[in-house]
Amino acid sequence: MDHCENSMVPRTEKEVQDLLKRLKRIEGQVRGVQKMVEDDRYCVDIMVQISAINAALHNVGFQLLERHASHCVAKAISEGNGEQSMQELMTVIKQFAKK
Amino acid sequence: MDHCENSMVPRTEKEVQDLLKRLKRIEGQVRGVQKMVEDDRYCVDIMVQISAINAALHNVGFQLLERHASHCVAKAISEGNGEQSMQELMTVIKQFAKK
Amino acid sequence: MDHCENSMVPRTEKEVQDLLKRLKRIEGQVRGVQKMVEDDRYCVDIMVQISAINAALHNVGFQLLERHASHCVAKAISEGNGEQSMQELMTVIKQFAKK
Amino acid sequence: MDHCENSMVPRTEKEVQDLLKRLKRIEGQVRGVQKMVEDDRYCVDIMVQISAINAALHNVGFQLLERHASHCVAKAISEGNGEQSMQELMTVIKQFAKK
Repeated sequence: MDHCENSMVPRTEKEVQDLLKRLKRIEGQVRGVQKMVEDDRYCVDIMVQISAINAALHNVGFQLLERHASHCVAKAISEGNGEQSMQELMTVIKQFAKK
Repeated sequence: MDHCENSMVPRTEKEVQDLLKRLKRIEGQVRGVQKMVEDDRYCVDIMVQISAINAALHNVGFQLLERHASHCVAKAISEGNGEQSMQELMTVIKQFAKK
Repeated sequence: MDHCENSMVPRTEKEVQDLLKRLKRIEGQVRGVQKMVEDDRYCVDIMVQISAINAALHNVGFQLLERHASHCVAKAISEGNGEQSMQELMTVIKQFAKK
Repeated sequence: MDHCENSMVPRTEKEVQDLLKRLKRIEGQVRGVQKMVEDDRYCVDIMVQISAINAALHNVGFQLLERHASHCVAKAISEGNGEQSMQELMTVIKQFAKK
């Protein structure tokens, strides 16, 4: 699945820091759910929290997707590897559209 | 959202440990994605990993949902609070059905 | 999959008419998409329309789900067949949560 | 939402016929559900059928998406309108990823 990797446009320092910040918040949320389980918290409250984490993760994934499409796939196309890169994009979108 | 909490059937020690094990694995996966970002890994590889975490979280949520329905909602019903408990269940399912 | 059918609470005439109205509108939308294809309409416009139909269908399904839970499952429970009915409900929710 | 329409690669006769065949089958399935409602069929059976229609519609949408990406977006890019076309693609994917 890494055959279009050469077209990757490196992330800026700001992009990296923003991603890390969001992922650390998600990590904290997952630990929060562990605490809820340890504290015998009500199932519904835990499920609501898990839905929130799922949404946050999905947003990070979508942000990566949009950036990848507008940067890396665009670069691949300008380098003549557009078809391969677009196929790879569709594969990952297919995976994303599933739960 | 905690109005049916009294009908909660406490989790067994085994259920608690199983949930914690799965949540710790998910926490590890989230940290793994942070590492991928720090190591400038290819966007598509990161997205595939995020999809996997989403699926794992969704499974935990669904496991909680099934257990809640068969234990707590069932208990609420036998105690005469079925209607409220079922409404609560539908609300959380609605949230779950969304991304 | 029809083993809890005996607990079904019949739909009122109003419920039937409302469902039929919504399903006829959906049928009309599907025919509209056929016309778009015949008229060589732009892919993106067709996809947007398909998304709208999917959302409409999903709403009908969810409306059925909520009514089934609050009526039929509740009745099954009061008749002592709650466990079976709740299992059936979870199975259909699992199917629904998928695309 | 039709600003990239000029890059559309016309569908072949075979593609049109295949799409129409699938959409007519979906139209038939929607009528089948109307019949199920008229016949007072069990909620769960109707919901299962609605899930099947949703999946079939989703497949048609995804087929359109893949073809649009590999044909029209690719063409837009080769004509220097790649950025706009890719943005449009992301917008429709976002809509698709929702229920």
